[in-house]
Formats: sequence, C-alpha cells, structure tokens
Amino acid sequence: MKRRDLLAASGALALTGCAAEPTGDAVSNDNRRFQWKMVTTWPPNFPGMQTGVMRMVQQLERASAGRLQIRVYASGELVPGMEVFDTVSRGVTEMGHGAAYYWKGKFEAAQFFTAIPFGMTAMEMNAWLYYGGGLALYREFYDAFNLVPFPAGNTGVQMGGWFNREINTVADLRGLKMRIPGIGGEALARAGGAPVALLADEIYTSLATGVIDAAEWVGPFNDLSMGLHEAARYYYYPGWQEPGPTLELLVNKQAFALLPPDLQQIVELAAAALNDQMTAEFTARNAGYLAELVRYPKVELRRFPDEVLEQLRRYTDELLVELVAKDPRVARVYESFNAFRQQVKPWSEISELAYLQTRQL
Amino acid sequence: MKRRDLLAASGALALTGCAAEPTGDAVSNDNRRFQWKMVTTWPPNFPGMQTGVMRMVQQLERASAGRLQIRVYASGELVPGMEVFDTVSRGVTEMGHGAAYYWKGKFEAAQFFTAIPFGMTAMEMNAWLYYGGGLALYREFYDAFNLVPFPAGNTGVQMGGWFNREINTVADLRGLKMRIPGIGGEALARAGGAPVALLADEIYTSLATGVIDAAEWVGPFNDLSMGLHEAARYYYYPGWQEPGPTLELLVNKQAFALLPPDLQQIVELAAAALNDQMTAEFTARNAGYLAELVRYPKVELRRFPDEVLEQLRRYTDELLVELVAKDPRVARVYESFNAFRQQVKPWSEISELAYLQTRQL
Repeated sequence: MKRRDLLAASGALALTGCAAEPTGDAVSNDNRRFQWKMVTTWPPNFPGMQTGVMRMVQQLERASAGRLQIRVYASGELVPGMEVFDTVSRGVTEMGHGAAYYWKGKFEAAQFFTAIPFGMTAMEMNAWLYYGGGLALYREFYDAFNLVPFPAGNTGVQMGGWFNREINTVADLRGLKMRIPGIGGEALARAGGAPVALLADEIYTSLATGVIDAAEWVGPFNDLSMGLHEAARYYYYPGWQEPGPTLELLVNKQAFALLPPDLQQIVELAAAALNDQMTAEFTARNAGYLAELVRYPKVELRRFPDEVLEQLRRYTDELLVELVAKDPRVARVYESFNAFRQQVKPWSEISELAYLQTRQL
Repeated sequence: MKRRDLLAASGALALTGCAAEPTGDAVSNDNRRFQWKMVTTWPPNFPGMQTGVMRMVQQLERASAGRLQIRVYASGELVPGMEVFDTVSRGVTEMGHGAAYYWKGKFEAAQFFTAIPFGMTAMEMNAWLYYGGGLALYREFYDAFNLVPFPAGNTGVQMGGWFNREINTVADLRGLKMRIPGIGGEALARAGGAPVALLADEIYTSLATGVIDAAEWVGPFNDLSMGLHEAARYYYYPGWQEPGPTLELLVNKQAFALLPPDLQQIVELAAAALNDQMTAEFTARNAGYLAELVRYPKVELRRFPDEVLEQLRRYTDELLVELVAKDPRVARVYESFNAFRQQVKPWSEISELAYLQTRQL
C-alpha cells in the first residue's frame, strides 16, 4: 500500500466530525442555558465509571461557565441501567453513559464498539475509533437511533474472573456455571460451560453460596470493592473476554444539534478527556488494589493455560463467522474492526509487548 | 497497605488542580478576548506532534467561541525549539508545546516527566501523572519557572533506532556512533558507544554517509517521513530509551491566572483530549507505516538481544543512582516515579502483557 493510501485508509480524525466550524463573534454572546439530564448504566458512586462521569459533568459545567448544567441519575435512580439507550434515544434525557455492548439486543454490531473477546486493547481501540474508521461507523449506526456517541472511558484489559474451580484443561470448563455475558459467555457455552446472567449486586452472594462456580467482573479496583476476593479462591488472567472495553457518552441527536457550536466542542473535549483520565485511573487503582490482593492468603492469582485460551479463541472465531453471515451490520463493522486489528497487531507486538517483556528481564 | 492508604497514596486526580470552582452567572458574560502566541519544539507540520498541536488550537478556538485565539509558531519560526521553555517562562509567548526532557539543562529532574530508559509506558505514565502524584510534582517544579504544565500527547513505545551495524552482543555497542540523547545516550557511552547530538534535519545525511552508525528517532510514522529506512538497514526494537514519552503543553503562569475560570477549564480539557488523541494517532499511523516498511527488501526488523538490553538496563540504573545522589529534585521525583513503576509493573504484566501474549498464541 502506498503512503497516501494508508493515510486515506486510516482516515482523518473522526472525532471532530460533530463540531461545527468556528463561528466567531456571534457565538460568544450566546448565553442560553441548558439544564440537561443524564442517565447512566452504573450504580451510584460506582468506582471509576460513575465517579468519572461525575467529574466530567463538573468539568462541563466549569468549561461552559454554567451554561451547560447536567443532573446525573445513576442506574435505577430515574430508569434502570439497561434502559439508558432508549431513554436518550427518545429524548427523555439528553445524555447517557454506558457501554455499547449492553445494546446488542438492539443490534448485534454494537458490541464491537465496546469490546469483543480476543479483540483490541484500550490503545488499539482508540486508534481504530479515532483514526481507523471505527467512530464513523459507530456514529452511522447510532444515528438511526437518534444518538451521537463519543468514546468516553476505558478500563484497560480486564481480569478473566474469580473461580472456585481450577481451570487446568479445556475439560474443566464443562459444566462450569459462570457469570459472563455476551460473546464470551457464548464461547464458554460451546466449551460445555453454562453462562449465567447476573446483575452486579447478585454476583457476590451467588459466588459465595455456590450457585455459580465463577464470575468475571472488571479488575482488582472494582472486584475488591464488591468483596469477590472473599467469595472465590482463584483469580484468573488475562481477561480474554474484554481486552479494552470502550465506554460511551451518548447524546440525543436533536439536543446536541440545539447546542451552540462552542458547547458542542466542549462536550467533545470533555468526552475525550474522560477517555484519557478513566484509563489512567483504572491503571493506577488496579495496580494499587492488586498489590493489596496478593497479600490475601486465600487468593491465588492464576494464568489461564494456553490450551484453554486457544480453544476459547477458536469458539469465538466460529461465533463471529456465524454473526457476520447473518447480520449485514456485523459484517460491515467486523470487516473494519478485523482489518485494523490485523494491521495493529504486529505494531503492538514490537512496541508495547516487546517493551513489557524487556522490563521482565 | 490498607485500602484507604492506597487511595491516599495514589491521590485524587491532580488534573483539576488548576481550574477554579464553578462560578455561575458572572463568568458566562465574560467576553474578553485573548490573542495568544504559542511556540513549539516541532518543525512546521511535523506529523503527529505539530499537527496535533494545530488540531488542539482549533478545538480551543471553537470551544471558547473565539475568545481564546492562539497563533502557533513551529520551531524556528519565532524562536528555536530549544528556547520554548524560556520563551513561555518569560511570558514572551503565553503557551508552548514540547517535551520536558528537552529542559534537563535547566534541571535534571525534568526528564522523568517525559521518559527515562526502562521507565513507564504511555498508560503507566498517565496513571502516575494523574493518579500517582506525578503531575503534582511536575507542577511544583515548573512553578519555580513561572510555568503550568499539562500532559498533552504521547507517542507510545518508540523504536530502538536505525542501525548500519548488527547488534548481537554488548561488544557490538563499542565504538558505535549513535544519535541518541539523554540518559539513553549516557548508558550507551558506558557500553563503549559514542552518543552524538544531532538535530532532526541532520540525521538522515549523517546516517546515509556513515558519519554516524545508528540513530534513534521516534517510530515508523515519523521515521519513514524522514527517509531513515533509506539510510540504514537494521530497524531495532523495542525503544528501551523511550517507552512512553509524555509531551507537554506549557502555559505561562500569569497568563493562565488571567484567564476566566471557564477558559482555564477549556485549556485543561483540550490538553487531556490531545493526550488521548495523539497516542491514538501514533498507534494507528505506526501500525500503518510498519506494514509498509516490512515490504522494503533492504530493511530488516530486529529485536535487541536480551543480553544487550540487560546491560543497558544496568548502566541506566547506575546513572540514576548517581543522579539521585547529587540532585535533591531528582531524588524526590525518582522516589515517586520508581515507587509507582514498581507497583504498576505486576499489574501491567497480568493485563496488557499477558493479553498481548495470548493474542500471539
């Protein structure tokens, strides 16, 4: 490929697609006030996610000199978390925060904008979204639902989950009752496991009482605050099912169009700043909580055996082929996602991977 | 360590430390205009860095509805790149963009806010700066120079450089004339090499004509645009000398204090957005240019032998011990930097590293 084709293929920064051109004098006198509502998929004060959203809302208020004020409702405070997409789509609230894979019931292709098993890391997701055509697709698909999405947070690589059963071979997945949603859960089912759908507040008790054998949640920062280290013994890594989930800010399309261009630009900057800061927070907190965790005598940190990861990868690829065959939107997003993943993989191997290996010498 | 101590140690988000509290009605009527100047350390249109700065300046103009307009001067257009720090410090221009390690002549400790050999990756640097106390130290040290720094961009892991000599053992570094600045260059000198200081536009010719044997610059994206693949044969990785350099936005302290709180907040958001977007751009472009590079028949991609990396690490550690002993500011920043690196390393190993290894299976 020629250099100019490469540049064309990777695209200009899609992020500024929504903000209007500078408008000069007229706009600086636009002192209209906007009192918005926002619903999120996160429990009140949920560490990292909800706290990050609250910080962004403060930043929006300061940056707009109070012209954009947003009242935030955590999951269940105005609507259940699983209704965020519809709530913002219908304009009941102007904003929402959550993760696209929660909306796979609306359209399967949504999952690719958050994470799929064996997909991309946080750095790679940002590269695909901003410079690889991902955000343009994301916006195109959401436009049909009256929504403008912005990448707004990422947890980084998650953990594989908490297990009360050792996983030494693929056979150990048979009959395993595990809380694991999405394509990851379906891959587990192909290996003979039983994926279970559980809400956040049901996980601890189900795991502690043996109703389930295993559960994946996020990582040390969130998992310890839920007490999962007291409900299971083995903490497996890496999180093959969620290597770098992108979270999203949703804005109702009509509401966004009504904002003056300066406030549109401020919203875009605040989302990108949250995207930057949340990953930093998860990296710092996960490191701190991991250091605490390894001192618990009852917890064993384990790496999934290669054999298990390879088999889960095969099942995932099968599932993706099936999804692509039956859903044209999945076919389109997978083509873009997979081409980018193939191109970025050799680079990640000689940069991030090779460097982190060097530091282990 | 208890959970509360961990939280206290890792600190609240330092990023909002500069912006004032929300001020309500009064500010939204503050329509003062600011015509600022900005100098950078980058050549005109330098890909990724200068282009990223230009994008940020557009965003600032839109987000402020034209109240904050910034005229940008690339290196040499108003002052040489190496005078950016002094120029902003003295208030000749209100803003600057560059990298802290360029100012080690002012104070050695500055280097830690960009990158040191065998230091932290982009994700880890952000975690340390925002949530590990790094940015607080950065601001404290720069305050003495009348400057407010903001993390504003990162290239990710760089390449080890272009070589016209194979590096198979530590002995191959003896007599190696290499363009490599900073502590990395000093480590090479301890291995018997000869670090050479060269400006960007001198590198290609020096390498092509054999004046130097090797040169590190950035990565595929920037290196190919300089034609370095036509001046040397071996392209070595990983970039042990710069694992995740943070670039900086500099704002003159008095100028920043004169901005109304909303514009202060907008500057902070735009810097964080650039920090997010530039890393994404480098990841995407490096991947694309690497794919092109490996098709050049004369270029060989090589990994540094472990023996060489281990020896360079030993020399780096020696140099750091010496720097710490003779400079109290280095001692302070190294204590914070190194404690964070020690804590984040096990987490990076079971998250980013373990996942990238899994994807190679």
